[in-house]
Amino acid sequence: MEVNYQNIKVIGFDADDTLWVNETYFREAETTFGNLLSEYETLNKLDQELFKKEIDNLPLYGYGVKAFVLSMVESALEQSNYDVSPKTIEAILNIGKDMLNKPVELLDGVEEVLEVLSKKYRLILATKGDLLDQERKLEKSGLTKYFHHIEVLSDKKEANYSKLLNHLDINPSEFLMVGNSLKSDVLPLVNIKAHAVHVPFHTTWAHEQVSEKETNGKNYKTISSLKELITLLN
Amino acid sequence: MEVNYQNIKVIGFDADDTLWVNETYFREAETTFGNLLSEYETLNKLDQELFKKEIDNLPLYGYGVKAFVLSMVESALEQSNYDVSPKTIEAILNIGKDMLNKPVELLDGVEEVLEVLSKKYRLILATKGDLLDQERKLEKSGLTKYFHHIEVLSDKKEANYSKLLNHLDINPSEFLMVGNSLKSDVLPLVNIKAHAVHVPFHTTWAHEQVSEKETNGKNYKTISSLKELITLLN
Repeated sequence: MEVNYQNIKVIGFDADDTLWVNETYFREAETTFGNLLSEYETLNKLDQELFKKEIDNLPLYGYGVKAFVLSMVESALEQSNYDVSPKTIEAILNIGKDMLNKPVELLDGVEEVLEVLSKKYRLILATKGDLLDQERKLEKSGLTKYFHHIEVLSDKKEANYSKLLNHLDINPSEFLMVGNSLKSDVLPLVNIKAHAVHVPFHTTWAHEQVSEKETNGKNYKTISSLKELITLLN
Repeated sequence: MEVNYQNIKVIGFDADDTLWVNETYFREAETTFGNLLSEYETLNKLDQELFKKEIDNLPLYGYGVKAFVLSMVESALEQSNYDVSPKTIEAILNIGKDMLNKPVELLDGVEEVLEVLSKKYRLILATKGDLLDQERKLEKSGLTKYFHHIEVLSDKKEANYSKLLNHLDINPSEFLMVGNSLKSDVLPLVNIKAHAVHVPFHTTWAHEQVSEKETNGKNYKTISSLKELITLLN
């Protein structure tokens, strides 16, 4: 399908796993969590139950590391049948603190792309993580200067993006979203007639996975590296 | 001092304890927390240590209920000398869930004021809590229709407000902030030459308290009820 990028004024970039590594740290954290509780259950069961707990808590806690830590603590209590030791609870809190203190590892070509595009477009960071955590990462990344501001969305569904466009005072055809999640960064945009470009990351959280049926015939581009965005928009 | 409100285009409202009750729930939660751990320490000591823990964790966790719960868990581990039971940890998690599920209790005159002012000004909600939590409260409050959007600030210092004004594309003299915290909603605004109106709430978190020295000679108005805002701006 041909896409017309002529009207675009604002480009929204997802942050985690689009600009920098993130999901990898969650996978590592799940492994550490599993090892801490391995006397009680198999790693596979612990992983599954933690995922269930995260999904159950999503409406109340939302996304981000703090929500993840609270779900780990709750899951540890239940999976150990309330036998888990206070030192293990402390170790779980420390998994979260370590995640929040991780250095920022930029993905390939990010700075180059932002530098080029920031001359022609207004760039915003559009994330559903914690604002404080995302601000900290942006600061550490050295990319602050390319972004007009950070937009925090409580979720990345059509209604959230419609609100964002309203807030930015632009039409859907003037907005392009770039991100690694088909579910969060691509499909909702296509559905409200805005533009979207998909840049897959090697790991996707189960909650973000979509079926082929959902993407069939949808009008978006997939690129294998963020660098291709420059050519695509030229 | 005479204040000229003629240029104002956008009014930012703090949410917690300005539009609806919030701090009261934190005080109740601290009492519940103290009672859960009363076998280990005096209530006073538990309260002080929890406050210290919150302040220590502030740079990493930021504000809001999830941060508060994580600090309660950590404080419980330490104050019990790692003797606290898993059931008590669960009870602490439930304090947080209860807080997130509280109904929204509007303060006096809120709806009337927003209805009047929304006809003349662009109103935004400017909060440093969790976006999801604030969106939920706004939804429950029935006040959504009066606000252009919610602005989440990772902190409410001068730099955060300057960024906000830049993002709103307005000058300081075109912005009025209304809130219950001198430290967060008033003084930083006065310092960047924007307008601020203080509406005290009966309870203030220790971290938000300021000395008389800091407010001396500062150019802002204090009103005893939000309703007075209508007269003030007329």
